Amino acid sequence: MERLEIDGPRLWRSLEELGRIGAYEDERSKIVGVNRLALTAADGEGRALVRRWFAEAGLEVRVDRIGNCYGRRKGTRDLAPVMSGSHIDSVPTAGRFDGCLGVLGALECVRSLNDRGLATERPIEIAFFTDEEGARFGTDMLGSAVAVGRLPLERALQLTDRDGLTVEGELRKIGFLGTHPERLPAPHAYVECHIEQGPILRAAGRDLGVVTGVQAISWQELTIVGKSAHAGTTPMNLRRDAGVVAARLILRLHEMATSGEYGEMRATVGAIDPVPGLVNIIPGRVRCTVDLRNPDDAQMARAETDLAAFVQTLASEYHVQIESRRTAKTPRIHFAPDVQAVIARHCDEARLSHQPIISGAGHDAQELSSLCPTAMIFVPGEYDGISHNPREYSTPEQCTNGVNLLYRTLVELARA
Amino acid sequence: MERLEIDGPRLWRSLEELGRIGAYEDERSKIVGVNRLALTAADGEGRALVRRWFAEAGLEVRVDRIGNCYGRRKGTRDLAPVMSGSHIDSVPTAGRFDGCLGVLGALECVRSLNDRGLATERPIEIAFFTDEEGARFGTDMLGSAVAVGRLPLERALQLTDRDGLTVEGELRKIGFLGTHPERLPAPHAYVECHIEQGPILRAAGRDLGVVTGVQAISWQELTIVGKSAHAGTTPMNLRRDAGVVAARLILRLHEMATSGEYGEMRATVGAIDPVPGLVNIIPGRVRCTVDLRNPDDAQMARAETDLAAFVQTLASEYHVQIESRRTAKTPRIHFAPDVQAVIARHCDEARLSHQPIISGAGHDAQELSSLCPTAMIFVPGEYDGISHNPREYSTPEQCTNGVNLLYRTLVELARA
Repeated sequence: MERLEIDGPRLWRSLEELGRIGAYEDERSKIVGVNRLALTAADGEGRALVRRWFAEAGLEVRVDRIGNCYGRRKGTRDLAPVMSGSHIDSVPTAGRFDGCLGVLGALECVRSLNDRGLATERPIEIAFFTDEEGARFGTDMLGSAVAVGRLPLERALQLTDRDGLTVEGELRKIGFLGTHPERLPAPHAYVECHIEQGPILRAAGRDLGVVTGVQAISWQELTIVGKSAHAGTTPMNLRRDAGVVAARLILRLHEMATSGEYGEMRATVGAIDPVPGLVNIIPGRVRCTVDLRNPDDAQMARAETDLAAFVQTLASEYHVQIESRRTAKTPRIHFAPDVQAVIARHCDEARLSHQPIISGAGHDAQELSSLCPTAMIFVPGEYDGISHNPREYSTPEQCTNGVNLLYRTLVELARA
Repeated sequence: MERLEIDGPRLWRSLEELGRIGAYEDERSKIVGVNRLALTAADGEGRALVRRWFAEAGLEVRVDRIGNCYGRRKGTRDLAPVMSGSHIDSVPTAGRFDGCLGVLGALECVRSLNDRGLATERPIEIAFFTDEEGARFGTDMLGSAVAVGRLPLERALQLTDRDGLTVEGELRKIGFLGTHPERLPAPHAYVECHIEQGPILRAAGRDLGVVTGVQAISWQELTIVGKSAHAGTTPMNLRRDAGVVAARLILRLHEMATSGEYGEMRATVGAIDPVPGLVNIIPGRVRCTVDLRNPDDAQMARAETDLAAFVQTLASEYHVQIESRRTAKTPRIHFAPDVQAVIARHCDEARLSHQPIISGAGHDAQELSSLCPTAMIFVPGEYDGISHNPREYSTPEQCTNGVNLLYRTLVELARA
């Protein structure tokens, strides 16, 4: 049988068209990035475009009560569908590939099936999930977590952004507060194509990565409460400067992650928000986020324990209070070996080089993995695989390779 | 001659009334603070109230082209006036005394003269100056610096806040873009009453402080440019994390100020602004402010040189760029010994204990000191003299003592 091929240029044009929604020019680099933060007007516009494309591809479209959008292509038999998808929301400083490649790639698979009039036994269902990034409402994989039942719908709808706006209100505002039940019946399998967002595949010269799972992720928000006071008149020994405590924390985390003492740990303090945040006032309060990643659950647990102890030490040393709030926590996820094997075999058949790789980022696939056999295909990225940055870039060839693999895998899995 | 006395309860009522404009309740402490950031609607409302009070006290009121507001009480002779005043703008998390005590205290002196029908030979002129805090447009003592000719009017009017709004536009919006020439003819003398904003007088049990001058102040804004990237996928050794560099800077400054190696240096990083500031993105850029104070110009110069060298070291060590922008710089200011002597003598006569004290904060008085003999009276504050904080508090008795001294000093200086 002739090998199935998607229409690479059409995939690329779709990526470009969606990438124009929320586009902005980076002040310094002059590179055009994407800002489609979840449930903003730009996200709403992007969603409307993709939903229209779903419908134009003949899919039966539904939107659920957390705003996840599904498009179903009927199979010849009434069986659980093979599923694929990702997200189209972005961080505020994004490129055009993160998430979108998975959604538009799945759409391209359906379009290619349509072009050739191919039927599958199992239905094929494609999806974009709400707020995968967590950049606005503080909880990532929001939509898929609700779909698989890990997060209660009511709690998700009541989450608020910095301005106190709720998920529910913002979904309604952009016309994506659907009525379809949010709990997803278990698909037969789930496969997601995504950019690697890291340097490994590109450095190793691989065409594709077969993802073995996702490293453990731990997010917390720390609030350091000291005492704001006048910068000019307050003697150094009377200060309770929350900014100095935050600096100690940032450097300790950096040291923990670079020391090798906690395995392959990564640590990031991305948000640092001093109050009142003015040149001549000692910060009385600093809110900061802590993002820990580890491919090993035991190392993660040890790092969390040691961090908590260090935070206690800081609190006594500087006479400040430090409150901690958990915002996300997922264990190490293992993807289905048999689905990985299908992907690897198709790589071999197409003479595309590949290697197993663990995902550094969280993905909707990790939520779906609690429902059904799941795996992911990683596409390499240029410039050290930089992502969450306007420089994010995978070549047309890299994208086509990844979606061709997705296409062949979905079609194979759709056999009853 | 009977000793001159102001009406303390009236002064207190005025402080309370002005303090209600821009009042807010602190989220945590539930204490009511004041937010009258320069040229906001609240500042405009405060200005309108005080201008009305100036007029009701029979003063000839004028507003200049940078929004400084002056009220003149005629003398019996046409001589250079004795001047007093301060500011009524505030940092966003303020109490009700900073600046306001100087303006409303000067007003109370005029009201008291009016009550007794007392004439002075020299005119008495009272003032509130625009944006003393510098908390919005980045340059403190803005109005008084323009009035004495240190800062060109055009440059001041074009300064912008974080949203790109100009001083000129915001002055116009609140109706305080005056037409009177901004350059102030030299007064005969300038005396300002202000809260200490520090712990020294209260700890020493003094009724008042006779201010000898102002320590040197250096403000700069540093922008650290690294590379934003995905927190989960970017290996530690490939990061250029601007947040980690900011943390190093904060701790080095803290160390410099606490080591004693730079004399009585104080150092504060009040603003820390990572971009994009999200949990799962390595900060690609951090803007932060540096506030240095030193009673010794030579020590300040040495600290600035050493800091600049450290910044260079950080830039090479972390492969980041660090840009520095100077936002304020004033040398050690020495106040007029003869005016200090008048204040000290009146303290002695009233059996109020006092001591010489150097100001840790910048004040409009330091600008006026380039025009005429100048001094300040400091009123102690409770709670370690905390300021730029809703807890800021001086008792009615402390305020009355300070303004009584101001009253007697102004009247004495107004003799030809």
